Amino acid sequence: MKKKLAVVAIGGNAVNRPGEEATAENMMRNLSETTHYLAAMLDEYDIVITHGNGPQVGNILVQQDLSKHVVPPFPIDVNDAQTQGSLGYMIALTLGNELKKRNIKRQVAAVVTQIIVDKNDPAFQKPTKPVGPFYSKEEADKLAQEKGWIMKEDAGRGWRRVVPSPIPLDIVEKDVVKMLVEKDVIVIAAGGGGIPVTQANGTLKGIEAVIDKDRASSLLAKEIKADLLIILTGVEKVCINYKKPDQYEVDKLTLEEAKKLLNDGQFPSGSMGPKIEAAVDFVSSTKRECIITDMAVLDMALKGKTGTKIVP
Amino acid sequence: MKKKLAVVAIGGNAVNRPGEEATAENMMRNLSETTHYLAAMLDEYDIVITHGNGPQVGNILVQQDLSKHVVPPFPIDVNDAQTQGSLGYMIALTLGNELKKRNIKRQVAAVVTQIIVDKNDPAFQKPTKPVGPFYSKEEADKLAQEKGWIMKEDAGRGWRRVVPSPIPLDIVEKDVVKMLVEKDVIVIAAGGGGIPVTQANGTLKGIEAVIDKDRASSLLAKEIKADLLIILTGVEKVCINYKKPDQYEVDKLTLEEAKKLLNDGQFPSGSMGPKIEAAVDFVSSTKRECIITDMAVLDMALKGKTGTKIVP
Repeated sequence: MKKKLAVVAIGGNAVNRPGEEATAENMMRNLSETTHYLAAMLDEYDIVITHGNGPQVGNILVQQDLSKHVVPPFPIDVNDAQTQGSLGYMIALTLGNELKKRNIKRQVAAVVTQIIVDKNDPAFQKPTKPVGPFYSKEEADKLAQEKGWIMKEDAGRGWRRVVPSPIPLDIVEKDVVKMLVEKDVIVIAAGGGGIPVTQANGTLKGIEAVIDKDRASSLLAKEIKADLLIILTGVEKVCINYKKPDQYEVDKLTLEEAKKLLNDGQFPSGSMGPKIEAAVDFVSSTKRECIITDMAVLDMALKGKTGTKIVP
Repeated sequence: MKKKLAVVAIGGNAVNRPGEEATAENMMRNLSETTHYLAAMLDEYDIVITHGNGPQVGNILVQQDLSKHVVPPFPIDVNDAQTQGSLGYMIALTLGNELKKRNIKRQVAAVVTQIIVDKNDPAFQKPTKPVGPFYSKEEADKLAQEKGWIMKEDAGRGWRRVVPSPIPLDIVEKDVVKMLVEKDVIVIAAGGGGIPVTQANGTLKGIEAVIDKDRASSLLAKEIKADLLIILTGVEKVCINYKKPDQYEVDKLTLEEAKKLLNDGQFPSGSMGPKIEAAVDFVSSTKRECIITDMAVLDMALKGKTGTKIVP
């Protein structure tokens, strides 16, 4: 019997735990745990794995900044590509080891993934996503002048560069991902939201931007006709009235309910907001379902016993 | 008619020109030229592209070193993975654009590639490959003590870390590369010689080493049963008595001739040596041919009009 196909988006916590040193050793250990949970669903699902790269690309930006007098810094599209390599490797290695333990004979492959955005996307007029190190006002002014960067004061902690977060339109390697899925390969793709590129007369060009990884995951799930989108995060269920006295968890949200709650400002833009938006995008386009949950309870969520399901 | 399959190894010069700033812009421009030459062979050949990463991984090591007080440095296996991401992206983008110009409707995909080495390879007892920044004697001693690095004085320029260069034994993603080739995808694989991993009871683990990219290319060519191995370099033909008064170029070397010249110390270990060794390895295992030449004359070399051919 043909298995169902799920796109599984793993979050930053699955790679770098808050407060923990971002060493390769820690990342490999965390990913061993993550891939343990993912491997458990392979009896019933084919999966394509996507991942975030916020902390990792942040560290590269810091490294580039501190060494810019000797090594020319790369633009963010190339930094994204670097993290697709490093995290793709770590996920492929740890998942491969987990498959071996379970005697599952399937291949794993991380594919470098470019995603097309519109250079006229309004996001380019109004960059919002803070990235990289904090600077003093003087340094920030200098960088704004020299490189044309948009700099914003960040909650009293200093000045940071903000970059655009445009809507992903099309995944350049979607056919490759589909081919591999059809050959039973577990694919890692669209890492860090994908490498943002613009298209003019069919020619691609990298652009400095950061695509939201949940949006990219939804687009990938639509393009490869996945049956299910799974967004893994730090909580078991979506909360309403989060951190208020009348907070409560929901098992299920219809599209209409989810849209209304988004409009009511229930979900913060830095965390649950993009996940609900991605869920709404996938479910409304495909009439299929999206599950938001914590990886540790993924097996229960797939059985409908926990997690929050967004349904048509 | 089924085309012949060639593995094409592109060298450092194809990405970063000597003396030129290693900016993403320069790298993209150089790779646009490289992929222009590669695309010209697609009428007659399916190709899998491999690439070096010496200068790129060197720059990451410098960046990591200058920022190690704030960001934990990654081991070299992860750095290799980072360069597979960045260079895989740049090659995929530039080749994709070139295909578009030529109206060739084929997919391109860079696959993150792990290569198994033996942890008992004698190279681990005797690291030889210098990597990363130069240090003072004091810093070198400290690093040797703290991290167990092997440090060597490098021709009066300071002290550098040396890492092992073990023999590549098996490519973890070889089946994935084969599947994609069968689906007409142009694959970029084994970048930077591949990410070195060791295997114990079926479990893989990254290891700090650098696999020679020509050796890795030969192994890949053998494993995917390529008809031809092409090693691109800065010279049109292999030279005998290089830089001596009686220097001359050769059009063809038999296996026996190539082995004898290697034994005679004709080819320096840092440049032509590994290429001839890789050629000998591929040709002796497969009874097929290897071409060593400059990318600018690749079309002529494929017609047998220039380049050096190593034959059984």
